[in-house]
Amino acid sequence: MATGNDAFPSMAPISGVRLGTACAGIKKADRKDVLVIEMASSSTAAAVFTQNAFCAAPVIVARQHLAKTQPRYLLINSGNANAGTGDAGIADALFTCGFLAAKAGVASQTVLPFSTGVIGEFLPVDKVNAGSEAALANLSGDGWSDAAHAIMTTDTRPKGCSVHFEYGGERRSITGIAKGAGMIRPDMATMLSFIATDAKVPAELLDQALSDAVKRSFNRITIDGDTSTNDAVVLIATGQSGDETVDPATGKLPEVFSNALNEVCTALAQGIIRDGEGATKFVTVTIAGGESEQECLRVGYAIAHSPLVKTALFASDPNWGRILAAVGRAGVKGLDVSAINIFLDDVCIVERGAVCSTYTEARGQQVMEQEDIRIRVELNRGCAEETLWTTDLSHDYVSINADYRT
Amino acid sequence: MATGNDAFPSMAPISGVRLGTACAGIKKADRKDVLVIEMASSSTAAAVFTQNAFCAAPVIVARQHLAKTQPRYLLINSGNANAGTGDAGIADALFTCGFLAAKAGVASQTVLPFSTGVIGEFLPVDKVNAGSEAALANLSGDGWSDAAHAIMTTDTRPKGCSVHFEYGGERRSITGIAKGAGMIRPDMATMLSFIATDAKVPAELLDQALSDAVKRSFNRITIDGDTSTNDAVVLIATGQSGDETVDPATGKLPEVFSNALNEVCTALAQGIIRDGEGATKFVTVTIAGGESEQECLRVGYAIAHSPLVKTALFASDPNWGRILAAVGRAGVKGLDVSAINIFLDDVCIVERGAVCSTYTEARGQQVMEQEDIRIRVELNRGCAEETLWTTDLSHDYVSINADYRT
Repeated sequence: MATGNDAFPSMAPISGVRLGTACAGIKKADRKDVLVIEMASSSTAAAVFTQNAFCAAPVIVARQHLAKTQPRYLLINSGNANAGTGDAGIADALFTCGFLAAKAGVASQTVLPFSTGVIGEFLPVDKVNAGSEAALANLSGDGWSDAAHAIMTTDTRPKGCSVHFEYGGERRSITGIAKGAGMIRPDMATMLSFIATDAKVPAELLDQALSDAVKRSFNRITIDGDTSTNDAVVLIATGQSGDETVDPATGKLPEVFSNALNEVCTALAQGIIRDGEGATKFVTVTIAGGESEQECLRVGYAIAHSPLVKTALFASDPNWGRILAAVGRAGVKGLDVSAINIFLDDVCIVERGAVCSTYTEARGQQVMEQEDIRIRVELNRGCAEETLWTTDLSHDYVSINADYRT
Repeated sequence: MATGNDAFPSMAPISGVRLGTACAGIKKADRKDVLVIEMASSSTAAAVFTQNAFCAAPVIVARQHLAKTQPRYLLINSGNANAGTGDAGIADALFTCGFLAAKAGVASQTVLPFSTGVIGEFLPVDKVNAGSEAALANLSGDGWSDAAHAIMTTDTRPKGCSVHFEYGGERRSITGIAKGAGMIRPDMATMLSFIATDAKVPAELLDQALSDAVKRSFNRITIDGDTSTNDAVVLIATGQSGDETVDPATGKLPEVFSNALNEVCTALAQGIIRDGEGATKFVTVTIAGGESEQECLRVGYAIAHSPLVKTALFASDPNWGRILAAVGRAGVKGLDVSAINIFLDDVCIVERGAVCSTYTEARGQQVMEQEDIRIRVELNRGCAEETLWTTDLSHDYVSINADYRT
């Protein structure tokens, strides 16, 4: 199941980036499961990784390599997460980086490894190496669509986004892909996403731009509240489109760049939710009038993680009492429930803490039967407002995750 | 679905307590849905209530009445929670208390109201009043089994426990019932549970005894992480069995009493989990070697709430990587993953943060196919240890909660 439009968009090539894929048979035969992304030596790169304490071997190695030198290649496999594999897993990740580096004629530390798939099984390094050699042989600037397919696991469709912006009279592009459909509650990162731009951006500004964009996109989605051991987002700026994309007056990135990057990150993050495991609904949860960002998120995630809210959404049942109960248990100190309003789209269901006098079951039902639903909670105790996105909890979610390894 | 033995135990009557039930047609016809519990005027009583900020009207009224005077009657209905109903809901709860008080010839404030069922619909007060009058007419000391049936909602079976202990050469009893199968993550309380003893216990000692017992029983279970708006546990001590059950040397309750009360609370709490909505597994999660109780619970609930762990349990799939990922995302500061061991029953699956050398899929599979499963995580950073109980996440859970109001 999935919600929304499933057409894969047209993806603008990024000068300085080439992508190659291969079918290495890591978990299943005859599907693309290895991706190599090459970036020009002029590039800068930024990355954010999972905050899960049990981070996977490739996350540990990618962090170390990135701290040492400018990357030239990203080596990604799906089907095996190389997580929970201890020192042997780290040795395996290093081995596959070294193999690709030798074939490409670069230093091993310029290769960053990424893995996604089953946790707790050792990486089939010979298959990965055969795949990376094959992928190197078909590198192409037009490989974005194949790349989006190669990183899929339980995803039912590839996720990509490509936008253009103008700066200094020149047109520049940002193109990105993402995977993810379950174990989704990014914590300062997300599932795998790889984004590139031809803009020229100094590394420290690129870091900040990526953190800012991730905060309001990948870090505002949840499917099941589970954070992966392998989450990572990488942003590459190849610098092949002319002058530095930096505002000379402020020394900062221009707003056109941040806006374009936010657009790509938000589209990819929402794409993950639309393709959430078993998803039949795309739900936007907005918490307004909170005392702080943290308080709004606490209430928002209490709703978004509630199995009772999620099963009511699946059933298109306007059982708003479950939303109210989730708000009440979110642990907001000194919450005055008699100040709270709750809306389903534009239908007021709770007014000052009790059922709204204008509410009818028919009006609630009408909203709940939509595929896209907005839940808005007004706490009326401050000025903070946060929005996050989630899915329902369906039979298919249970089936997909009960059968995942079989 | 439910796990374990479904035989309802023999329930010892408690001298000074009588129970009456009625079919009032609150949500469904021809099922017991009103319960009246009468306690002798010699009784003391203690209660704990939900910490959900959106607590239901009966919870607000019961708290107020309990603070004012010694209760004589508990008035319980199932089928409607009288929650999210604002001031009208409070008026309705007060009205039903007043009606029962007039019929019984007591003050209105000596009646404590309790409701469980659908949130957000107004209480059908005429039906409740007709039910309470009928229940008053059939009060009996042997009414515990009928009472356990009358408080059920999505429960598939009644839950009761009765134990005896000796003190000062006299035999005393504790008998209790509970309901609950979903929206279960008690937070300083639980779903509804009513427990009585014929022991004579001063009110302040009874309060402490109930808090202590609830902490390690009802507050250590979770089905879906959702906390009800209506949770309550009441403990009545009728004092009809002789001398005060207080150790004269210490001024405290004797251990035989605390042990017996803990036994009843734990049996009822585990009964709720065994009857969890859609449950096919009964899962004991123990976190050992934590720095604090809070840290152990944080890790334990991260596992117990993980939809991915719960669907793997449903599938009897030893996908222990999901347990590891849940531990990793629990947010324990400075967690050294290389010190962690994880066991399924007695099978070591993770040793020092990586897959155990003696682990085989066959050994993990053998444990996962059991109905009762123990998950033990050793953090090896302190001396705290906590145990909690949970269920799997099955198709039936989704069906039950998607169809709840239809």
